[in-house]
Amino acid sequence: MIRHTVAFRLKHAAGSPEERDFLEAGRQLAAIPGVEKFEALRQVSAKNPYTFGLSMAFADQAAYDHYNQHPLHVAFVQERWIPEVAEFLETDYEALS
Amino acid sequence: MIRHTVAFRLKHAAGSPEERDFLEAGRQLAAIPGVEKFEALRQVSAKNPYTFGLSMAFADQAAYDHYNQHPLHVAFVQERWIPEVAEFLETDYEALS
Repeated sequence: MIRHTVAFRLKHAAGSPEERDFLEAGRQLAAIPGVEKFEALRQVSAKNPYTFGLSMAFADQAAYDHYNQHPLHVAFVQERWIPEVAEFLETDYEALS
Repeated sequence: MIRHTVAFRLKHAAGSPEERDFLEAGRQLAAIPGVEKFEALRQVSAKNPYTFGLSMAFADQAAYDHYNQHPLHVAFVQERWIPEVAEFLETDYEALS
């Protein structure tokens, strides 16, 4: 199981319709086959610059690869993420045995 | 519910006894009252500099504050974290309604 999380900050003003619309679009990623435990999150620590997060789990690397290559994900990255996200950090976690 | 996660990289060599000892010490934080869903994690994305993670959840800010001030946590930060961690990033997530 791989837990994929991306912390991010939008170019949009806090509470704006553009922010709300982006977050709603991000939630659609949950529909991609193989995405488990999808969560839309608010980042509340003052120790980093990010204000939101998306978290999801994949059973294995094949499911993760399938997600990355899925047309819905590719379109989201091109049409929404790149133009609207100011900065972000991705982390991928596996259990530490 | 607040999910507190810290991604980090140690000064120790990968696979070293010092690394193993640090990770074992980190697991002891799970014993602090109020810590829920504790996980020791391996960070596997090449898109950030971190190699491990610790994740835990708190019911509310009071439980989080209690953890931060607990003698076991304070001692861990002073005696292990500060001398042995090369770089880190903390994130705190809440559900986005």
